[in-house]
Amino acid sequence: MTAAPSNDVLVGALEAGGSKFVCAVGTGPGDGMLARISFPTGDRPAELLSMVVDWLKDQEARHGRLRALGIASFGPVDLHPSSPRYGFITSTPKAGWRNADVAGRLRAAFAGVPLGFDTDVNGAALGEHTWGSATGLSDFVYITLGTGVGAGAMVGGRLLHGLVHPEMGHMLLPREPGDDFQGVCPYHGACWEGLCSGPALHARTGIRAEDLPPDHPAWDLMARYTARAIANITCVLSPQRVILGGSVRKGGRLGEERFFQRVREELKHALNGYIIHPFLDADIDYYLVPPFLGDDAGVCGAMALAQDQRKNL
Amino acid sequence: MTAAPSNDVLVGALEAGGSKFVCAVGTGPGDGMLARISFPTGDRPAELLSMVVDWLKDQEARHGRLRALGIASFGPVDLHPSSPRYGFITSTPKAGWRNADVAGRLRAAFAGVPLGFDTDVNGAALGEHTWGSATGLSDFVYITLGTGVGAGAMVGGRLLHGLVHPEMGHMLLPREPGDDFQGVCPYHGACWEGLCSGPALHARTGIRAEDLPPDHPAWDLMARYTARAIANITCVLSPQRVILGGSVRKGGRLGEERFFQRVREELKHALNGYIIHPFLDADIDYYLVPPFLGDDAGVCGAMALAQDQRKNL
Repeated sequence: MTAAPSNDVLVGALEAGGSKFVCAVGTGPGDGMLARISFPTGDRPAELLSMVVDWLKDQEARHGRLRALGIASFGPVDLHPSSPRYGFITSTPKAGWRNADVAGRLRAAFAGVPLGFDTDVNGAALGEHTWGSATGLSDFVYITLGTGVGAGAMVGGRLLHGLVHPEMGHMLLPREPGDDFQGVCPYHGACWEGLCSGPALHARTGIRAEDLPPDHPAWDLMARYTARAIANITCVLSPQRVILGGSVRKGGRLGEERFFQRVREELKHALNGYIIHPFLDADIDYYLVPPFLGDDAGVCGAMALAQDQRKNL
Repeated sequence: MTAAPSNDVLVGALEAGGSKFVCAVGTGPGDGMLARISFPTGDRPAELLSMVVDWLKDQEARHGRLRALGIASFGPVDLHPSSPRYGFITSTPKAGWRNADVAGRLRAAFAGVPLGFDTDVNGAALGEHTWGSATGLSDFVYITLGTGVGAGAMVGGRLLHGLVHPEMGHMLLPREPGDDFQGVCPYHGACWEGLCSGPALHARTGIRAEDLPPDHPAWDLMARYTARAIANITCVLSPQRVILGGSVRKGGRLGEERFFQRVREELKHALNGYIIHPFLDADIDYYLVPPFLGDDAGVCGAMALAQDQRKNL
């Protein structure tokens, strides 16, 4: 873990996740993180956001004025600054959270403090760009393979937003012959998330990812489908690097390194030498990598969104 | 066809295609195009590029000094200005063209004249952005569905390059149950290009696209697979608009409008309401559109690459 660069200022960060909200205060990861706390997400946004504000105010009293705030949120979210619902969680099926104004509550409590707001995966991407596996890159993707599957991306040095925001986990993939698992996505059945999320793996095998035996054939399917999705991302975005995060990427009892090696082999197989670059061949270990910030990628991402606000002033 | 905006200057343009090279001189499309010519691509780059240079010099003598040049080239190409092979066609299987220095020949003949170089599809995207179906947008995709399948993209107001450049035509797609056509891509078999290019349609049916009867079931498969690919592009890039060009998009005897309507219906079916935006629902006619510049998208794209060089000076 790196120490925070000295030009980073004291910020408040909120990783708004579907199962927990993680807050932190500091200048960056590692020693730069002065305090952190987490709350279960629950179904009462107003109460939870008040607790977040109270905690941040308390930390400010201890450590000094927060110069910026960053929120990396589960979604879908409204990312258009000119929209009346900017900073809202919009069409989520999650109880209580539909049309929740996440950014507005913090903005009201910290008047005049710059606030960065983006998707959880774009936040994690920015965190890895600032302090992790993507420093110095202009074009890369951060994937989470966990309870859900999604990805954030930087293109030409800027976080990718577009019309709404990417929903890469819902990409449609070719099925493996003989695999008739229907998938768990309520919208698409066997899309990438429907095939490879933690709940999908559990539905397929009856075993949780962390307990699945290393020789279970489901690991091969997970590696193959995930590799096909990364091949498609490679065809569409041509990233310089792909960071694969999320709890399921740890490969359970198979282990992270062996799971990554399988995904890399399957990725070379899927691309089949068409796009010629060392990163897609002999140097593929440098192309597909785990997050440097590990499980802190999300909350560090929120810190990076805050630091980015300062840089943009 | 619009007249060229008055701030555009006289430029020379080369659309370097796999079957023909189209050259033009002028300020933009329509009345702005003062002269054009096309040559078969053949297998002798040096001879062909000399003919291109001679024609451009001749036009310069007639119409005045060319202020910039633009090349929109078939690929793969090297787009990294710092590379010793910048402006080369690289690993193409096309006879004679491997490692051909396309940009270098024009640069040598027109010393000091700014030269823009990009993929044919990025060029077409920029042409549509400058004069066509994507004016005012920051994030969109231009697809060619023709002899090959590929796409260029603008993200955050800039053409997407990344590690190499996108190769969206080689995306892997779920197969339609019962469709056992093997596809024609030598690398991936039944990738998007392997399933939906002109040669793929011919291999599947024995009939050329322009002669295929309107009620042939292959049109349904073409619409369905192309819609799945556009759904994946939507998930990865979240574009504001998708422009579908190329000869096969005209739908042969089915007709462009009916082919587009089928692709739009299949696209809504593939996305299935997950990403909520009018452009992906009631207003999908504004999301998936044909190129405004029609068959001139490529050569106009090369003109736009040239104009862009002037703007960047």
